[in-house]
Amino acid sequence: MAVRTSEAEWRGNLREGAGREELLGAAHAGCYSMALSAGLSKAGHPPTRVHTVARVHLEKVGDGFGITRIELECEAEVPGIAAAAFQEQAEGAKKGCPVSKALAATEITLKAKLLG
Amino acid sequence: MAVRTSEAEWRGNLREGAGREELLGAAHAGCYSMALSAGLSKAGHPPTRVHTVARVHLEKVGDGFGITRIELECEAEVPGIAAAAFQEQAEGAKKGCPVSKALAATEITLKAKLLG
Repeated sequence: MAVRTSEAEWRGNLREGAGREELLGAAHAGCYSMALSAGLSKAGHPPTRVHTVARVHLEKVGDGFGITRIELECEAEVPGIAAAAFQEQAEGAKKGCPVSKALAATEITLKAKLLG
Repeated sequence: MAVRTSEAEWRGNLREGAGREELLGAAHAGCYSMALSAGLSKAGHPPTRVHTVARVHLEKVGDGFGITRIELECEAEVPGIAAAAFQEQAEGAKKGCPVSKALAATEITLKAKLLG
């Protein structure tokens, strides 16, 4: 088992801050890229490059704020793979990456593009 | 509505990486600290300091890996607040912060300590 520790310190009563959503998006984009790379490699198609953008949507929900959607947009260079096999791997990574699973309560959308 | 964009790039077929869990923990610790600070301020008790540690537990689950638990551990200096009122705010922030809500599928535990 691995336990990763992170810390945050807050001073004063500042009420706003976008850094948290960017961190969440970076965690998701990184996790997704890694999961896709691992899946493709396991299937015999190690990618040359995987690039993922995560867009985290924060909206007013009732009294507070909520993350209503995360859009993943991925581009990958994967020598020799068929388009359908790539899309299958891309969907599998969306379902299977640990951060996606932790975020199961949140809508996640995916656009995956095979380059070249 | 706010949309925050983050990116990740992956080259080669490296299969490991702990950075993603640290980012997720940092997002959660930061979001929790901010929500607690906002809640306390709204209740008339702006904190001097809020410090939160997030421990993200990653474990083998079936075929893959999953985030099985996130432990939040918070210490706060809040002039003039009663212990029970502080604990109520601390629990409220755990339930209400956007990252906690997005992670509703994941077990989250909280220890909150009022300092001084």
